[in-house]
Amino acid sequence: MKFSVEQIAKILEGEVEGDGEVLIDNFAKIEEGKPGSISFLANIKYEPYIYTTESSAVIVSKEFIPKSAIKSSLIRVKDPYLSVSKLMAAYQQMLKVKKVGIHPKSIISDSAELGEEVFVDALAYIGDHSVIGSEVNIGAGAYIGLRVKIGAGTIIHPGAKVMDDCVIGENCVLHPGVVIGSEGFGFAPDENGVFQDIPQLGNVVLGDNVSIGANTTIDRATMGSTRIGKGVKLDNLVQIGHNVEIGENTVIASQTGVSGSTKIGRNCMIAGQVGFVGHIKIADGTKIGAKSGVAKSIEEPGAYSGHPLLPLKQYLRLMINLSKMK
Amino acid sequence: MKFSVEQIAKILEGEVEGDGEVLIDNFAKIEEGKPGSISFLANIKYEPYIYTTESSAVIVSKEFIPKSAIKSSLIRVKDPYLSVSKLMAAYQQMLKVKKVGIHPKSIISDSAELGEEVFVDALAYIGDHSVIGSEVNIGAGAYIGLRVKIGAGTIIHPGAKVMDDCVIGENCVLHPGVVIGSEGFGFAPDENGVFQDIPQLGNVVLGDNVSIGANTTIDRATMGSTRIGKGVKLDNLVQIGHNVEIGENTVIASQTGVSGSTKIGRNCMIAGQVGFVGHIKIADGTKIGAKSGVAKSIEEPGAYSGHPLLPLKQYLRLMINLSKMK
Amino acid sequence: MKFSVEQIAKILEGEVEGDGEVLIDNFAKIEEGKPGSISFLANIKYEPYIYTTESSAVIVSKEFIPKSAIKSSLIRVKDPYLSVSKLMAAYQQMLKVKKVGIHPKSIISDSAELGEEVFVDALAYIGDHSVIGSEVNIGAGAYIGLRVKIGAGTIIHPGAKVMDDCVIGENCVLHPGVVIGSEGFGFAPDENGVFQDIPQLGNVVLGDNVSIGANTTIDRATMGSTRIGKGVKLDNLVQIGHNVEIGENTVIASQTGVSGSTKIGRNCMIAGQVGFVGHIKIADGTKIGAKSGVAKSIEEPGAYSGHPLLPLKQYLRLMINLSKMK
Repeated sequence: MKFSVEQIAKILEGEVEGDGEVLIDNFAKIEEGKPGSISFLANIKYEPYIYTTESSAVIVSKEFIPKSAIKSSLIRVKDPYLSVSKLMAAYQQMLKVKKVGIHPKSIISDSAELGEEVFVDALAYIGDHSVIGSEVNIGAGAYIGLRVKIGAGTIIHPGAKVMDDCVIGENCVLHPGVVIGSEGFGFAPDENGVFQDIPQLGNVVLGDNVSIGANTTIDRATMGSTRIGKGVKLDNLVQIGHNVEIGENTVIASQTGVSGSTKIGRNCMIAGQVGFVGHIKIADGTKIGAKSGVAKSIEEPGAYSGHPLLPLKQYLRLMINLSKMK
Repeated sequence: MKFSVEQIAKILEGEVEGDGEVLIDNFAKIEEGKPGSISFLANIKYEPYIYTTESSAVIVSKEFIPKSAIKSSLIRVKDPYLSVSKLMAAYQQMLKVKKVGIHPKSIISDSAELGEEVFVDALAYIGDHSVIGSEVNIGAGAYIGLRVKIGAGTIIHPGAKVMDDCVIGENCVLHPGVVIGSEGFGFAPDENGVFQDIPQLGNVVLGDNVSIGANTTIDRATMGSTRIGKGVKLDNLVQIGHNVEIGENTVIASQTGVSGSTKIGRNCMIAGQVGFVGHIKIADGTKIGAKSGVAKSIEEPGAYSGHPLLPLKQYLRLMINLSKMK
Repeated sequence: MKFSVEQIAKILEGEVEGDGEVLIDNFAKIEEGKPGSISFLANIKYEPYIYTTESSAVIVSKEFIPKSAIKSSLIRVKDPYLSVSKLMAAYQQMLKVKKVGIHPKSIISDSAELGEEVFVDALAYIGDHSVIGSEVNIGAGAYIGLRVKIGAGTIIHPGAKVMDDCVIGENCVLHPGVVIGSEGFGFAPDENGVFQDIPQLGNVVLGDNVSIGANTTIDRATMGSTRIGKGVKLDNLVQIGHNVEIGENTVIASQTGVSGSTKIGRNCMIAGQVGFVGHIKIADGTKIGAKSGVAKSIEEPGAYSGHPLLPLKQYLRLMINLSKMK
């Protein structure tokens, strides 16, 4: 399939600069573009490539002012990253072959209820009394335990596991190897200092449009629910402890860990390899830098970083001071 | 099932304060309690909720002195956390439906030996010459390699993997996605700087009552055994390198990594995201704070934290100093 | 099987000191040796054991000067660690039973192409149009998606997952639970601050002789390829973001994370729990210490450590300064 630069610009409500007739048939990074490719420029670090790229077209910001000649056609839009993302989504949608049906080599309990147009691949497992919404896609080797509920349109990738009694919203994506509802790390030392398991009787509840990265783990609540709000995005290898609550539209990058019973607000942005102690509260809209250690509640939204955690400006000064220390 | 507050107090050897006749039929966090719920108060942070909770009963410490009126019945015990944990365990035990039998869609080698009352779910795999103790529960999609030994009463959750020649004790729990006995990270650079694999000929040995968290990985020894002592509890996403030894009743929180050949003593408490270099020894009873970097052996038991690792008091002073640095 | 110390010395091109006739039938750590064992001494920390070990033979460096009497026979070589590794590899090779064949309980698409002498275990899955090279070994429960290419001699361990369109080189090893080609963490906030998924249309390409540790995750590129060079070794629980490139023969230890579009050069050595921000470049031959935070490109090869990242000497001074701060 080929599209003219003009056609693409229309989809993106952008303006063409240069040849609008050139045909595009693939996406490429700006530094790897070939004739026929469309690329984008969002991060200023990559600007030098726009003067040398062989891509036939580049999506750029309305504000972008070239420093020298550009061979490619330009499509000017408000937000190049969002535009290319919409374009890729539309392309992906076109290519998608919708899979429907139940593979005969899957294991599905007689008491499970499956909605319409569900796809269940080989070696997937659905346990007793689970309820699977319409158009759900369950990959090979995925495991759905007992009494699980999965909302319509959700994708469970190969090898992801949803343990007993958990509830997954609509249009969620669980990437490969995810574990939802493992038993949390709860042990009470007895009189002899030997640790006794604390039963974990609660579950995990994911809102709609949640995305959970590969091999990320979310523990079930001791009592009640571990709650992941609508629109939350967790990266790979993240750990969410029992009874944690994460507010809507918060994003958390890879290898961050949140200890038990901590509550993170809405619209927070948490970078990678951050650690949160248990039983604290983080205000809505908080931003936390990579590798930070969060040992106390944060009441004022803002940007913080470091270990000790400091307001961002103070943290940056500290980093400079430490770099200069003799 | 319903129990009176009086009946529950008897089980816990606690004293009732208030109405002992109220009936209880579920557990709830103190801040989410409803009539019919029993809650507990162990962490002082949650004290405000005891004055407003709708839970019918709350388990509290013998020493707890209320600051104002409480509607709920109280059950006073020595250690509320341990008591609620025992109560939940008893409740869980009552509810448990014991699963026994071999699912016809499991894959079990003819040369494997299975004890009495074993449960093997669909899509589980048990390799040649493995020996599975009585009352072992092997979940869907779990993988047991060749010549593995698993002690009586152990639970292998869905998708957990135990590689060839490893030995698992009695009453252990391997949570979903665990990998026991992967080949360690051993490479020796040859004359040309190209890394050659060092074969990992040893195994992993887990003592009794060990719990391994979701997606945690434990590498087999190069020679001999990687050893995890009796009663050890590892959280999710922990990494244990080849030839590591961990002493009895030590607990390690999420995302901590222990490099090859390091020996951690008994009764240690290691927080999350800690890193240990290889080939060091940690004294029995050591406590290490979150995100610490442990670069040397610790001979004196005590509490340490930070990177550089410091005695806890000194670490706390350093944190304050860094926070104040201009 | 037994070999004399003399025979072993010949294989290693080493010189015998002491009895060359003693028979060896197993490997043991120097501190756990028994008569019949061969051990090695590479790390000076273990020197005290050489004077007490019961191992019949110890492989040591040509330069090693004993401080007192040693009962064991010695085999003197240039590089003891490399020598023992070669010896173990030869031993492992001798023991290996080559598995060939397709287990009837595997799931293989009719359109997949399998090379000669392939082994596919039970419950493994190979999707449409995938091409599997000769002598590839695919373990139980491993998942190979659509249009995947796997080079000759590669081992895919149980439960490892290779998602659609990825390319794996020859003689690679993917350890249990590995995820190759998960969708990267790409989200663009729309006008309402709600995150929209950015489709990830690229793939992951692994060169030859790559080893990927247990439960490590490598995200597919947004466009183009995430590239892992020939001979790269990644440890367990490592996270590699979308569009990352890692040069040949670089090794990365456990729990390190590399954010999107970062390029790490050849022959780098990256320790554990390091974090790299996105869109930076690391020079060939760079060494980075454990727990470092890498926030900027590194143009000068050398040894660095810390967070802020500093040249190694400066970092070590800073550590001492911080330890002394009052």
